[in-house]
Amino acid sequence: MITVVLIGSGNVAQHLLLAFQKAKSLNLIQVLARHPKQIAHLLDEKKIISDYKELKEADLYVIAVSDNAIAEVSSQIPFTYKLVVHTSGSIPMIEIDSKNRKGVFYPLQTFSKSKEIDFSQIPIALEAETKNDLSLLEAVAQSISNQVYQINSEQRKALHVAAVFVCNFVNHLYEIGSEICKENNLSFDLLKPLILETADKILSLTPNEAQTGPAKREDTVTINAHLNFLNKDNQKEIYKLLTQSIIDNGKKL
Amino acid sequence: MITVVLIGSGNVAQHLLLAFQKAKSLNLIQVLARHPKQIAHLLDEKKIISDYKELKEADLYVIAVSDNAIAEVSSQIPFTYKLVVHTSGSIPMIEIDSKNRKGVFYPLQTFSKSKEIDFSQIPIALEAETKNDLSLLEAVAQSISNQVYQINSEQRKALHVAAVFVCNFVNHLYEIGSEICKENNLSFDLLKPLILETADKILSLTPNEAQTGPAKREDTVTINAHLNFLNKDNQKEIYKLLTQSIIDNGKKL
Repeated sequence: MITVVLIGSGNVAQHLLLAFQKAKSLNLIQVLARHPKQIAHLLDEKKIISDYKELKEADLYVIAVSDNAIAEVSSQIPFTYKLVVHTSGSIPMIEIDSKNRKGVFYPLQTFSKSKEIDFSQIPIALEAETKNDLSLLEAVAQSISNQVYQINSEQRKALHVAAVFVCNFVNHLYEIGSEICKENNLSFDLLKPLILETADKILSLTPNEAQTGPAKREDTVTINAHLNFLNKDNQKEIYKLLTQSIIDNGKKL
Repeated sequence: MITVVLIGSGNVAQHLLLAFQKAKSLNLIQVLARHPKQIAHLLDEKKIISDYKELKEADLYVIAVSDNAIAEVSSQIPFTYKLVVHTSGSIPMIEIDSKNRKGVFYPLQTFSKSKEIDFSQIPIALEAETKNDLSLLEAVAQSISNQVYQINSEQRKALHVAAVFVCNFVNHLYEIGSEICKENNLSFDLLKPLILETADKILSLTPNEAQTGPAKREDTVTINAHLNFLNKDNQKEIYKLLTQSIIDNGKKL
């Protein structure tokens, strides 16, 4: 059994907590939380601590806190030469305090507190300083997910940027779609099958093959009609820029 | 049995053809195609014609051709007072030649020739000039889909614009994600679970509730790091504009 301590009680920490608890080859011995009440319903209260002095020795310390707190939290762990990892897409491994062995355990997914998630399908991107540490992280990752990758800090940064495009920005386009529906007394439900199919397509087609619409066809009549229809500046600007980018992409190929 | 003639042999026409053929209460009596070979494998060849003179009388003529051909095609139907509909999101109903009764039968989905689709989940937005015609269209639509809506031309235009945002533009963001992966020797597969979960979230959360990421948190450190990382102008511009739009949206609420 690999012993694990989790530090954090937010969104990502709560999902990891549940996944670690379910894993048969892991023993989640403690969770350190600034706000113990947030996770009191998720595990045996004896395992929840809020003081670094109470931390037990473990094979792995997983820091799942906000990016700007990672360095400080890692420096407070009262041990040396332990394996300490963070779970962030954008923070370099070296921000972890150097008194311990460093690593990264980055689950690439969008987590919502109110929505349960199947961890087995979540890619986990790992980084470590030595082969031994990487093996340990692989064992932990494989115990909760079927998709485990080893990538370096630069690739992780790329992955995080790409994730912003395909998740955060995509969701903002959903929001604009929802706004347009509301303004025209249309149910957002009308768009949901289209949203799901658009995502589902990329399992069998490349995004380039899957591209359709007026920009792809360079249908300027429809494009201009849409621009005339839109009355919010941000919607117009986004429409223009993405249309031009699709047209330019078509010309490159 | 409602008798139906389909005009067109492209992407949308082929998906409608298959759905009409499966529907028990419909009798697809003819398909008029400029390129009969494109659909020869999909139905009895005797039903495929390419000359308007051969058109039989039917309860409903469904024109599934490109937007700019709808007016011309509708004028070539050698009958009067028949119900003639088009399937476009962006063309007003009145572009159909006025010698016949007009309507719209707009299936709101993204169709790819190489990917089969479950028509029962596709919203169909209907428009007609009279209650009787609307009832007929409802009967046809309900025979292939569980999601039938009545909307006017202005709402349909709004829906089409919204669809461009949540489908065509979203797919372009997938393409950018795929480009970033390729440039950094990462498999696009890494992003697929995130893409699917981002879409799936809007079934249980509003897009506003589902929004996460550096823009939502106004995390300028990460935003600037991402802008420095991106080296293509269009990617940088899209990143900036969508980030600003998410930040502005947060302030409105």
